[in-house]
Amino acid sequence: MKKVSLLAPGPTPVPPRTLLAMAQPLIHHRSADFQEVIGKVRAGLKKLFQTQNEVLTFCSSGTGAMESSVANLLSPGDKAITVSGGKFGERWALILKAYGCTPVEILVPWGQAVNPADVAKLLKDDPSIKAVYVQALETSTGVDHPIEELAQVTKNTGAVLVVDAVSALGAYPIPVDQWGLDVVLSGSQKALMLPPGLAFASIGPKALEMMKTSKCPKFYFSWAKELKSQGENKGAFTSPVTLFMGLLDIFAMLDEWGMDKVYAETVIRSKAFKAAVKAWGLDLYSKQRPSVALTAVQCPENIDGQKVVKWLKDKYGIFIAGGQDQAKGKIFRVAHMGYINEFDTLQAISAIEMALKGLGYAFEMGSGVAAAQKIFGEN
Amino acid sequence: MKKVSLLAPGPTPVPPRTLLAMAQPLIHHRSADFQEVIGKVRAGLKKLFQTQNEVLTFCSSGTGAMESSVANLLSPGDKAITVSGGKFGERWALILKAYGCTPVEILVPWGQAVNPADVAKLLKDDPSIKAVYVQALETSTGVDHPIEELAQVTKNTGAVLVVDAVSALGAYPIPVDQWGLDVVLSGSQKALMLPPGLAFASIGPKALEMMKTSKCPKFYFSWAKELKSQGENKGAFTSPVTLFMGLLDIFAMLDEWGMDKVYAETVIRSKAFKAAVKAWGLDLYSKQRPSVALTAVQCPENIDGQKVVKWLKDKYGIFIAGGQDQAKGKIFRVAHMGYINEFDTLQAISAIEMALKGLGYAFEMGSGVAAAQKIFGEN
Repeated sequence: MKKVSLLAPGPTPVPPRTLLAMAQPLIHHRSADFQEVIGKVRAGLKKLFQTQNEVLTFCSSGTGAMESSVANLLSPGDKAITVSGGKFGERWALILKAYGCTPVEILVPWGQAVNPADVAKLLKDDPSIKAVYVQALETSTGVDHPIEELAQVTKNTGAVLVVDAVSALGAYPIPVDQWGLDVVLSGSQKALMLPPGLAFASIGPKALEMMKTSKCPKFYFSWAKELKSQGENKGAFTSPVTLFMGLLDIFAMLDEWGMDKVYAETVIRSKAFKAAVKAWGLDLYSKQRPSVALTAVQCPENIDGQKVVKWLKDKYGIFIAGGQDQAKGKIFRVAHMGYINEFDTLQAISAIEMALKGLGYAFEMGSGVAAAQKIFGEN
Repeated sequence: MKKVSLLAPGPTPVPPRTLLAMAQPLIHHRSADFQEVIGKVRAGLKKLFQTQNEVLTFCSSGTGAMESSVANLLSPGDKAITVSGGKFGERWALILKAYGCTPVEILVPWGQAVNPADVAKLLKDDPSIKAVYVQALETSTGVDHPIEELAQVTKNTGAVLVVDAVSALGAYPIPVDQWGLDVVLSGSQKALMLPPGLAFASIGPKALEMMKTSKCPKFYFSWAKELKSQGENKGAFTSPVTLFMGLLDIFAMLDEWGMDKVYAETVIRSKAFKAAVKAWGLDLYSKQRPSVALTAVQCPENIDGQKVVKWLKDKYGIFIAGGQDQAKGKIFRVAHMGYINEFDTLQAISAIEMALKGLGYAFEMGSGVAAAQKIFGEN
C-alpha cells in the first residue's frame, strides 16, 4: 500500500503512460516495423543531443557507453586525461587502466569543478595525450564541469573530448554541435525517464577519425559495427525492444511539452530545493557550479546522511540517494530532473525536514517548505 | 487492430501478467528492497541452471555474455576451439579475434552437429588450447550440439567448456552441475519469456581458476567485479530494475507450473510442428539433433523462405524467422519455447500452409494442421 516516490538521481520515475507503452506485446527486433522504430529513435536522439552526428544506442548501463569510448578510441599504451572529481570521474581512470592505457588524472577535490586551464596545460605539455574524459555532471557530487570551455581547450589539439552526460542530458541543454563536443554519452534512466538498460553515444568527426586507428579490443560495444547497423536502422545485436518503445513514447511527450519548458522547470525545482537547504541553515556539497539536475546537501556535523536516506525510505517510501565512497554518510542527494513536479520536490523537502528533526537537527520545521513555495509561487 | 503473434526464436511473447509486473513504479537499484530482489533472482537462476555455481547477470544482449566468456577467461594469443556450425557459432571466432586470441575453428556444415571426437582429437593434439566455445542450440540452424558429451571430452583436459545456451536454457533441461559444464550463458528473451536486455553466465570452479590468469581487458563485463557485487546481492553497475522485476514474476510462474511440465509441453509442440512439416512433404533444415526449442524448415526449391516470413508478418501479424547468412531464403524458423500453447503452434502451421499455398507450393491444405492435431490429441 505504501506509495513509492523516486527522487534519487536515477533511476527517475517512469511516466505511467510510458510504463503502459512498454507493456504492449513485443514486436520482433528484426522486422521492418522495428526498423521504423529505430529510425524514429535515432532522429529523436539527434534532436535531443542537438547534433548531426550519429548517436549510437547500446543495451547496457551508462558504464558500458563509458567503456565503449575507451575501447573504440584508444590503443594500449595511449595516454588520456581523466577528471577525477567524484565517483564517476574516478571510473574513467579504472577503465583506462583495464585497457592498458595510461590515465593522466586531474585530482579535483570532491565538490569542485575542473579548471579548464589545468587541462589546457597538460595538453600543451604533452601533445601525445589522445583524449580528455570528463563528466558533464558528476552525479556523486552534484557538480557540473565546464564542458563548453573544455571543448574550446581541446578543439585545436589532437585530443578528443569525451563527455559523460548520463545524468545531465535532458536535464539542461548540451548543444553537442554548437559546443563542438566530440563524444557525448548518456543513459535512459535519468532525465529520459526510462528504466535503466539503454546507453547512448554521439560520435563526432574527430572521434570517427581517431576510431580508425584504435587497437583496443571491442565487439559488443564496437562503434564501427553499430555505425554500420544502426545507420541502416538495425541493431548489430538483439535490441532491447521494450526500451525502444518506451523511448519513442518519451520523445513524443518531450515534443508535446517542449524541451525549453522541461529545462526551465528543472531550473525552478532546483532553485526551490536549494532555497530550502539554505533555510535549514545547511550548505550544498557542491562548492562550485552546483547542477540544476540534482542537489547534493552537506549534512549537519552530527547527522549521518545514510540515516536521512533510510528514514525517508523506511517511513515514507521516498527514495533519495546518499553519498558514495568518500562522501558516504556526509551528504544526501535529491534529483530535480525527469518526470517530477513541484509537489514531488515539496514532498522531498517536507520529508527531509521530518527526518532531520527526528535525527536531532535543530532548525525551524517548515522553513524549507516555505522557502521553496516562495520560489514556485514566483515562477 | 491487427493481433501480433511472436513465434520467432526470440524475443518470445511476454506473459501479460509479467508485462504488468514490469509496468509497476520502479524501486531504486541501490535499496535494500532491490537487494532482496537480486537475492531472489540469483536463487531462481541457480535453480533453473541446476547449479551451485554463481550465475551472474549482465545488462546486455546474449552477445555481451559471450564476449564476457572470452574477456574473462583468455589472454591475447591464447588458442580456443570454436564450433562454427551456424551464425552464432561463427560469432565465437569473431569475438576471439577481436581480443587477439586464436580460434581453432571446427567447421561443421550448417544443419549438422559437432562430433565430440573431433574436439577430443584437437585437445589431445594441442594441450595449449584453453577453451571450447560452442552453442547448446545453434539458433540459426535449429541444431542441438552434444553438450553432455563435450563436457566428458573437456573434463580431464586443461580446457574449459563454454556453452552458449541463450535459446536453449529453459526450453529443455541443461543440468549444469550434473553434466559438469564450466560456463553456461543465457539470455532473457527466449524461454525466459522476457524482453531482451538481460544476459546470464554460470561460472564453475575450473573457469574461476582460469579467470585468475586472464589478461584480456574487461570492465563492464568483468566477472570478478560482478562476483563480488552480486555475491552481496548488488549490481556492480546500474541494474535494469524492470527486467529484474519481470524475472521474479517469471520464476514465480515457472515454480507454479513446474519445469518438468514446461519441458514436456515444449517437446509436444515441437513434435506436432515437425509432424506438420513432414505432412507437407518438406524436410527439416536440421539434419542432425533437431532441437525441441525451435524448428528450422527447409523450403521447397522454388519458394523463398523470406517470402514465407513476410507473408505471415504482412497478412497475419505473425512473426516467424527466416534464415540467416548462408541459410537466408532457404529456410524459415518457428519457435516452440516460452509463453506459447498448442493453439499458437496450430496457428503458425495454418498460416504457413496458407503462405505456402499462396506462394505456389503444391500440397494438401490442412494436412499439417491435422498431423499436429493428432499429436496434441494424443498427449
